[in-house]
Amino acid sequence: MTKIDDVARLARVSTATVSRALRGLPTVSESTRARVLAAAEQLGYTASPSASRLAGGRTGTIAVVVPQITRWFFGTVVDAAEETLREAGYDLLLYNLGDQESNRRQLLHASNLQKRADALMLVSTPLSEAELATIAQLRLPGVTVSSGAAVPGWPSVRIDDVGAARAATAHLLSLGHHRIAHLAGDASAELSFTTHIDRRLGYQQALLAAGQKPDPRLDVEAQFTVDGGSQATLDLLSRGEPPTAIFAACDEMAMGAMSTLRSAGLRVPQDVSVIGLDDHDLAAAVGLTTVAQPAATHGRLAAGLLLDPLAGRPRATSASIILPTRLVVRESTGPPRSG
Amino acid sequence: MTKIDDVARLARVSTATVSRALRGLPTVSESTRARVLAAAEQLGYTASPSASRLAGGRTGTIAVVVPQITRWFFGTVVDAAEETLREAGYDLLLYNLGDQESNRRQLLHASNLQKRADALMLVSTPLSEAELATIAQLRLPGVTVSSGAAVPGWPSVRIDDVGAARAATAHLLSLGHHRIAHLAGDASAELSFTTHIDRRLGYQQALLAAGQKPDPRLDVEAQFTVDGGSQATLDLLSRGEPPTAIFAACDEMAMGAMSTLRSAGLRVPQDVSVIGLDDHDLAAAVGLTTVAQPAATHGRLAAGLLLDPLAGRPRATSASIILPTRLVVRESTGPPRSG
Repeated sequence: MTKIDDVARLARVSTATVSRALRGLPTVSESTRARVLAAAEQLGYTASPSASRLAGGRTGTIAVVVPQITRWFFGTVVDAAEETLREAGYDLLLYNLGDQESNRRQLLHASNLQKRADALMLVSTPLSEAELATIAQLRLPGVTVSSGAAVPGWPSVRIDDVGAARAATAHLLSLGHHRIAHLAGDASAELSFTTHIDRRLGYQQALLAAGQKPDPRLDVEAQFTVDGGSQATLDLLSRGEPPTAIFAACDEMAMGAMSTLRSAGLRVPQDVSVIGLDDHDLAAAVGLTTVAQPAATHGRLAAGLLLDPLAGRPRATSASIILPTRLVVRESTGPPRSG
Repeated sequence: MTKIDDVARLARVSTATVSRALRGLPTVSESTRARVLAAAEQLGYTASPSASRLAGGRTGTIAVVVPQITRWFFGTVVDAAEETLREAGYDLLLYNLGDQESNRRQLLHASNLQKRADALMLVSTPLSEAELATIAQLRLPGVTVSSGAAVPGWPSVRIDDVGAARAATAHLLSLGHHRIAHLAGDASAELSFTTHIDRRLGYQQALLAAGQKPDPRLDVEAQFTVDGGSQATLDLLSRGEPPTAIFAACDEMAMGAMSTLRSAGLRVPQDVSVIGLDDHDLAAAVGLTTVAQPAATHGRLAAGLLLDPLAGRPRATSASIILPTRLVVRESTGPPRSG
């Protein structure tokens, strides 16, 4: 069996350099890395994750940061990523940071993250300039999933949030709605967290394209949760004449909206149509029309993008994967009542 | 500041023994551990997790095993456990094993788990005799959450599944139902996985106490998911006269049942009442009556039980915490139609 020594001899570098090159660490020049990869290929050498872990003092672990594991999108991304990573011999360290900057700061600054993980997956994680600088110093391979900060040199996996929101709003417009409300994410929550900004933008673009002026009284901010959607809907109903349709920025908010509308004596969709964005596990059960995004695919692809450099395959540094979304029409949307 | 050397001198043991004793490792006799704890207390010495990690070559990491992170109960347990562990300076390694024995075997046998984690939390994890023996050899502190195998010497946190199922069924009986179906977990799924067995037992006990004989035609097995509940309900409806009420073994199954009943033209609760067990985030939004279990409390308490031995506090080896459940009546249950 080919040993790492053979690869080192052929590439005329140390075994440590072979190990670093095959693990995709940034301390190896591109020309050296290319020479090592060529030598490894010529000799048929592949570093197993566990061998590489032992030889290189690496951890065999990938750190995954999510705002909240209990939310459908994040749970599904982690579920799929964990399976892909486990099959490749890697463990998953879960950082469920509750979307708070103090938690992120602690993770990035005080935790010796580079000694605890071989790579980093940031899911919907906003980052300040200072945090981006800290991440650059960690010199770990990484990937970003969903909106959040773009990290220079890292690939990303996401949907077109503006386009998905435009499609949701356009569905309501095509049914004949003129008073379309939006339940948006909480803009005050975090710096650089772009999901809710992009989805609001798509909503506004669709209205403008249809010759409608966005009405701030029909635009309510809330948490991306069932309770957030309920609260935002109560707020909306307290502002006077209700809208004939609601586009909620995620399915959990949409389900909260449906429940609150019914409690207020309004029928869905006869009095108010509701559309979400996700295709949550329960969307079909509650008859929610939505723009579906492939959450599990996000997790699988992002894990694969991390495994490439760790296995010594070329890094997809510039890969920016935009996954497709699609409109799924169920019972919660229909034409507005005439008159 | 008191150093570990001072504690060692006072207790007349090596610093390594102090470290092992304070981390709750089982290689220290109870009398030695008591002497070390007394000395540490007398000198006001506390091992910080990071210092203990460096000194003892420990990992600062807790391994948490769940069947599937996307399910409400498991996501909520992990969310709460992660927060408690992070505040104490520990990271969480997530093993999302999909309920499969082959995955568990790989984790327990081939992963050098004792080098990767300081303690183990098993959530609803069934274990064979061979797996129990392997866990005993790992010599890690641990805790079990929810049903699953009991591990000798480990504390556990759970509900009384039999009692909770009895309460759900008794609610339907008290409304006057006589044809009560049960959507049960899949008994063929796993050895020693007792949740679904206990919940079926509670259902049967309640029927028998009311003088009703359990009818196997009204007892359907399915996965603990929305889809599982839908499939089981279709199966039930194909068997002839529908029941007047359904007790689903978890809320996700109950929500699948509600959706399938409505698609089949049956009203909930006028034609068929539905009750679940959980109090899922969405239970209120869909009006589901359920027996609530405190999932986040499971995670927080179990994490605390692991932190005790790791911080050198006495281990609660025999603690078996049974958390309370309570009936939450919403719109999905009512009396049967007369006639």
